[in-house]
Amino acid sequence: MESTTLGGTTGVPAAPPDPRGPGWSVGVDVGGTKVLAALLDPAGRVARTHRAATRPGPDGLVDVVTTAVRTLTRAHGVPVERLAGTGVGVPGVVDPVTGTVEHAVNVGVAQPFALAAAVASVLGPAARVRVENDLNAAVLGAAHTVEPGATARDVAFLALGTGVAAGLLLDGTLRRGSHRAAGEVGHLTLVPGGLPCKCGQAGCIEQYASGSALDAAWPSPDARPAPVALLDAADAGDARAVAVRDRFVGAVAVAVRVLVLTCDVDRVVVGGGVSQLGTRLLDPLRAQLAREAAASPFLASLGVTDRVHLAPRDVPVAAVGAALVGRGEHV
Amino acid sequence: MESTTLGGTTGVPAAPPDPRGPGWSVGVDVGGTKVLAALLDPAGRVARTHRAATRPGPDGLVDVVTTAVRTLTRAHGVPVERLAGTGVGVPGVVDPVTGTVEHAVNVGVAQPFALAAAVASVLGPAARVRVENDLNAAVLGAAHTVEPGATARDVAFLALGTGVAAGLLLDGTLRRGSHRAAGEVGHLTLVPGGLPCKCGQAGCIEQYASGSALDAAWPSPDARPAPVALLDAADAGDARAVAVRDRFVGAVAVAVRVLVLTCDVDRVVVGGGVSQLGTRLLDPLRAQLAREAAASPFLASLGVTDRVHLAPRDVPVAAVGAALVGRGEHV
Repeated sequence: MESTTLGGTTGVPAAPPDPRGPGWSVGVDVGGTKVLAALLDPAGRVARTHRAATRPGPDGLVDVVTTAVRTLTRAHGVPVERLAGTGVGVPGVVDPVTGTVEHAVNVGVAQPFALAAAVASVLGPAARVRVENDLNAAVLGAAHTVEPGATARDVAFLALGTGVAAGLLLDGTLRRGSHRAAGEVGHLTLVPGGLPCKCGQAGCIEQYASGSALDAAWPSPDARPAPVALLDAADAGDARAVAVRDRFVGAVAVAVRVLVLTCDVDRVVVGGGVSQLGTRLLDPLRAQLAREAAASPFLASLGVTDRVHLAPRDVPVAAVGAALVGRGEHV
Repeated sequence: MESTTLGGTTGVPAAPPDPRGPGWSVGVDVGGTKVLAALLDPAGRVARTHRAATRPGPDGLVDVVTTAVRTLTRAHGVPVERLAGTGVGVPGVVDPVTGTVEHAVNVGVAQPFALAAAVASVLGPAARVRVENDLNAAVLGAAHTVEPGATARDVAFLALGTGVAAGLLLDGTLRRGSHRAAGEVGHLTLVPGGLPCKCGQAGCIEQYASGSALDAAWPSPDARPAPVALLDAADAGDARAVAVRDRFVGAVAVAVRVLVLTCDVDRVVVGGGVSQLGTRLLDPLRAQLAREAAASPFLASLGVTDRVHLAPRDVPVAAVGAALVGRGEHV
């Protein structure tokens, strides 16, 4: 599945390489199945992207990351040693100071692994490699891209994917958490005594708002992704599909409300696989939040409905955020 | 009810006044019924406290605050003009830069009111007056006092009083929120379709975890506060009291879990009137959290149970926090 695309996923024309220039960086977003990398120009625009399959385990991880960096920099004529840095976003517990990753079970890294050092040892002594949790990278990318020409300072990135969790940028600073566990809203209880969750609890938000939850509740009968099949069936009037959809939208709305009422984030950017639904998700989500606000002057005063946005579908926000980490922002 | 106490509420012997010294400050915590003020010495110890009844409205507010400051400073021989500053904590929406208060309905100030300027105009041109939201002041005071000899940097102060809400100190910085509304966990839904809340929603955490909720669910038959009467009845085996108590403890546990899972705060300090229950609240709360952790390796890994503490009963944490605000910390 490996592919490299010029200015690929943004629609922004590629800036010409600046052979003198510092300021270029590469970001690599490592997911459970795919790796998406972006070369960012000094102005913060995506110049080129690269996609490959994830290879689990420490060696596979280092190989796929370094291949992505070399591929992008060679293709664009920016030497690795001239990069401002390389950032890697990984779904696990990351120590951004040491560049060590652990509990990254989806990419086959359970024990602490010094990923930054391992990548740097392959790329060469001049490489500046930084590692960050993938949702922290994603919220930086979302803040960088959600408003054209400006960087938002107060954002939650709510990822609806295999699980449900958020990255938090508060007052311009990443909120990693005292135990690097901030944003675990997916494991708050939505339905007491509800569906069992792999975390050991029951009725977690994640069991109703994640992509996995939709896969389980409405297996796609054909090539369409489960969320699309579900919404198609609901639109066609299938009562059971309507119930599953409404429960899903209600669960996402609860996650949004938790983020807004607890952290008072200015924006909640919904991302992750399910966000590919676009307005088919955003419109009913906003309608749900508007109904709640209509019943509650308190919620209305907070303007929850207007705080919700979708991650841009044409920008790899997590890779962009990793590239911002790579060039030393938000250390 | 006016009274002034030497080293009053802390048990710490009063430090001798330092007539040369900068660094002394006064903090005034304005509540719906009472005002509690503290004179803090340069080492951050409570030298003297003062208590008075709240007088609603802008004029009453200014009068009671300035009287508290003058009473404490005169009694201790520290001239007002030598104070490092005066801080005022108010239950409302506060602009800490301008010192303006609004939506402070419990103290009779609805429209924007320039409280800092009004207090300074009475105390004199040398007075440095700063205003902060009362829960923000309280979390600073809690961080200052929860561990003897050290200041915690990552704390939520969960107030169980008339309502339920939290102040947040994250990575050493107050999280006021993008709309100065962070910490409103009391209005997250605990029981769908449950007890109506004045916010317009139903089943809010506040309807089960607040002091007002206990007053309503278990009106005291005598002079004991409602929470005490409830626990006494539960201890005596009253099945209905046991049910109300368990629902109360469960609701507080949910608020704690929301704060830990969303913000990953290192400590949750439970305060407010209900926290006067002391270990009669803390023990069942920790037991509830421990039961939840026993069922969930995820919750166990977060160590939620060990993060919960009670506000010290012998320190006026909100007044202490206001005094820290007054001397210019956390601007």
